[in-house]
Amino acid sequence: MSGTGLSLIGAGRGEPGGPTFTGWNPTENVALEPRFHGALPHEVARACQLAEEAAPAFAALSARQRAVFLEHVAEALAGAEAEFLAITPKETGLPPARIQNELGRAANQFRLFARLLEEGSWVDARIDRALPDRRPAPRPDLRSMLRAVGPVAVFGASNFPLAFSVAGGDTASALAAGCPVVAKAHPAHPATSELAGLKIRAAVAACGLSEGVFSLLLDAGIEVGQALVRHPAIRAVGFTGSRAGGRALMELAASRAVPIPVFAEMGSINPVFLLPEALAARPQVLADSLAASILQGAGQFCTSPGLLVAVDGPGYEAFRARLVEKLGGAPAAPMLTPAIAARFREGVERLASRQDTRTCVQGASTGAHGAAALFEAEAGVVLSQGALTEEVFGSCAVLTRARDVVELTRVASRLEGQLTATLMVDAADHECAAQLLPVLADRVGRVLVNGVPTGVEVCPAMVHGGPFPASSDGRFTAVGTGAIRRFARPVCFQDVPDALLPAELREANPLSLWRTVDGVLKRE
Amino acid sequence: MSGTGLSLIGAGRGEPGGPTFTGWNPTENVALEPRFHGALPHEVARACQLAEEAAPAFAALSARQRAVFLEHVAEALAGAEAEFLAITPKETGLPPARIQNELGRAANQFRLFARLLEEGSWVDARIDRALPDRRPAPRPDLRSMLRAVGPVAVFGASNFPLAFSVAGGDTASALAAGCPVVAKAHPAHPATSELAGLKIRAAVAACGLSEGVFSLLLDAGIEVGQALVRHPAIRAVGFTGSRAGGRALMELAASRAVPIPVFAEMGSINPVFLLPEALAARPQVLADSLAASILQGAGQFCTSPGLLVAVDGPGYEAFRARLVEKLGGAPAAPMLTPAIAARFREGVERLASRQDTRTCVQGASTGAHGAAALFEAEAGVVLSQGALTEEVFGSCAVLTRARDVVELTRVASRLEGQLTATLMVDAADHECAAQLLPVLADRVGRVLVNGVPTGVEVCPAMVHGGPFPASSDGRFTAVGTGAIRRFARPVCFQDVPDALLPAELREANPLSLWRTVDGVLKRE
Repeated sequence: MSGTGLSLIGAGRGEPGGPTFTGWNPTENVALEPRFHGALPHEVARACQLAEEAAPAFAALSARQRAVFLEHVAEALAGAEAEFLAITPKETGLPPARIQNELGRAANQFRLFARLLEEGSWVDARIDRALPDRRPAPRPDLRSMLRAVGPVAVFGASNFPLAFSVAGGDTASALAAGCPVVAKAHPAHPATSELAGLKIRAAVAACGLSEGVFSLLLDAGIEVGQALVRHPAIRAVGFTGSRAGGRALMELAASRAVPIPVFAEMGSINPVFLLPEALAARPQVLADSLAASILQGAGQFCTSPGLLVAVDGPGYEAFRARLVEKLGGAPAAPMLTPAIAARFREGVERLASRQDTRTCVQGASTGAHGAAALFEAEAGVVLSQGALTEEVFGSCAVLTRARDVVELTRVASRLEGQLTATLMVDAADHECAAQLLPVLADRVGRVLVNGVPTGVEVCPAMVHGGPFPASSDGRFTAVGTGAIRRFARPVCFQDVPDALLPAELREANPLSLWRTVDGVLKRE
Repeated sequence: MSGTGLSLIGAGRGEPGGPTFTGWNPTENVALEPRFHGALPHEVARACQLAEEAAPAFAALSARQRAVFLEHVAEALAGAEAEFLAITPKETGLPPARIQNELGRAANQFRLFARLLEEGSWVDARIDRALPDRRPAPRPDLRSMLRAVGPVAVFGASNFPLAFSVAGGDTASALAAGCPVVAKAHPAHPATSELAGLKIRAAVAACGLSEGVFSLLLDAGIEVGQALVRHPAIRAVGFTGSRAGGRALMELAASRAVPIPVFAEMGSINPVFLLPEALAARPQVLADSLAASILQGAGQFCTSPGLLVAVDGPGYEAFRARLVEKLGGAPAAPMLTPAIAARFREGVERLASRQDTRTCVQGASTGAHGAAALFEAEAGVVLSQGALTEEVFGSCAVLTRARDVVELTRVASRLEGQLTATLMVDAADHECAAQLLPVLADRVGRVLVNGVPTGVEVCPAMVHGGPFPASSDGRFTAVGTGAIRRFARPVCFQDVPDALLPAELREANPLSLWRTVDGVLKRE
């Protein structure tokens, strides 16, 4: 196994001395070489200081220069497929095809943001020209645009070693905005993290940027992450993980002398609502696609469906029977880490021990392997006790039987914030769907019709986020081009001479941006 | 004096029973009729519950319907000029001309948002059409737009009884976004608040909207505000006031079971940097305009200049002398409340008692009147001790003498977050200004050249906000059309049939919006 096991502090390396840990092969249930060394407190401080020093020049790069840098990162990642394939499947238990796919996605995220920068209009340039003759008072010339907020701390996710980790979407969007990144590797895949970090660092060097634009901190505990979030140089935090972890970071960030925003994506049960006509018309097709979604990647996706709400009636029994067949027949799958597998088993046991819930499928989960589980309960259990809506990370779902669409709608209206909600409908369900859609839109980041929530497209219209507790701030997405807005803020320039303005705001519009001029969007 | 002294709970009234208080005439230093009754806990809960019930239908109004409502509010406010003139000058000590001006501004804010809704593109509609033939996986149809976050709590400001209070910018932008508002009146102007609330409520009724769209809570303490921010129905908070008050609300909101964002605008010292050539060329002109800005409204503006940093050399002595003359010659002015006047006197005394600061002007402040104050210190005092950068709300400024532009730039780089920073330059200063501009842009919401920071234009390009502690979240503005974004969040619709989509996202673009379609902005 490759990797030196030391943090990347700008262009330098951390030292041995902190607590050590190793990667883990969940398929074979053995520890991996080498030993990794937790970053020391002075190394955290050094990485943050370098980021702070690098921030002004990095933010001042032209959009074109930053785009070139992002393209370099994309190429460095894409060119390292063989290297990643040699280590990541071992570290994660994920199959090589998934790693290839995810690496492509990680590289494409950098390319997507490079294109966004090349086009340039994301800065939301607004120009209100002076009105010197206005009465009673003249209007000054006012021009605003989005600018980088400063250094960003990025916490890698356990379940996407590439696309949501060191070289993932948070890093790509922060760098695109012009913010240096200090990444904290997830200990579930330290060698993958180090390799990804080396690729970003190589791009920093190749583009002649300041070393402080990127650092990578290793750690198996929480101390390094806490020190990172506390450091005054850090201006925002990106995180994907558990609700407990996200909430702890939110509280830490809120208690700083200068509070900073935390963008925590904390998962969700992604409810699926099966309306009567759809259920009657195609129970087995629906069961097949939902079973595949539940089983995908051992259920280790933030968007894995964990609650299915179906109206009792024609098709219900056939739907349940087929779901039981599909989930019950699936082999136990390796999970990312023994700890994740243990938490999955605990969650399944908790549901199995409930008096008001029937166990439909509960396979044997052993070691780092998790077997799919399915439970069934009446909708009244959700409504009267607010139970069964806690996420069990893994292939585990609760099928909830509603007496009618009124009860199904009541379940929908009781949901806490979710990343997604899905409606399964036929044409004859549309009237009911029209009632449900706004109820769901008020509670989720993405509403789907006749699809499965797993699979998050990276594109301008994607919203991967949702009201708390799905994410810390539902006004932002963690996936897609909109993610860049988390790390930028508007600055207004009043009566600033044209030569002193950023290119984006100059009268001649040298970058050919779409701009809001005197309230009208134009590209003059 | 008019007013019943009772809260407005939807279409109803609060009851007597809570702690009572009165308005105050700061000019004559006497209490005003009638007595106002603090809202009772069950009234706070009732207002929030009504807002929650009203939220879905209010958010589902067409943009046109909401625009008509905002126009009704604007007309109701503008038509009440005589009523406001009969009470607001007495309650605030502000002259009638200022009240007329501010009422016009308040009405215009509603009209501005009405026009924004009529145009409609603010929802940032994004459409990524399905790619059914894409390999390895097809792309679904994805469409996103901004939607209302739900009920918003608005805290009125002491210093803008109309334009930043019950019928101020926070209320206008929240209602524009489709969020019901529960306002908390500032006790400095309860009769004005009640009248403004009655005008909004009349517009709610005239448009046939649910009563829960607007409520107004009265209180002279902090309990009602705390209960409001704690109520689960409230999804966001708008606040303009002190740093202590804003920070307390931020902490309260962060500690909720479901944390919510607080948009607190907490003031600033609005530093002004006088560069050598400008100072040498026109010391008296600069002193005159800055003195007028410091004296305006008895300095009771968030954007009042409180720190002037000038390079020692030609013009410095003339500038200071003229400033001393102008500020020293100004009569003491009535402040908004005795408490504000008392805090101003304390702040002035604190500066006057410093060994390292020279008192240039310190008039006699008595009762509710405040007299302008000016102090002078070497830049080293700011640099070595981080002192002299605390806001003294009122006509009080510190003139800081820098040895050279290097030291002046160091002062700039030591600033905490500010609403504004101003550069006074001549053409020969441009090289130095080009260095300073990005340093300031990193620390403030608005950079001005050769202007004064007082006077905040309401327009698309305005940014009234800035990094903490100027505001709680520098990524948002409290003034201008951008303020609406505080109260909206994106929702994505995946493969939702056209007939079930919001009008903004339908294929035919019936509202003729600018939309980002497959990554390209168009209005097809």
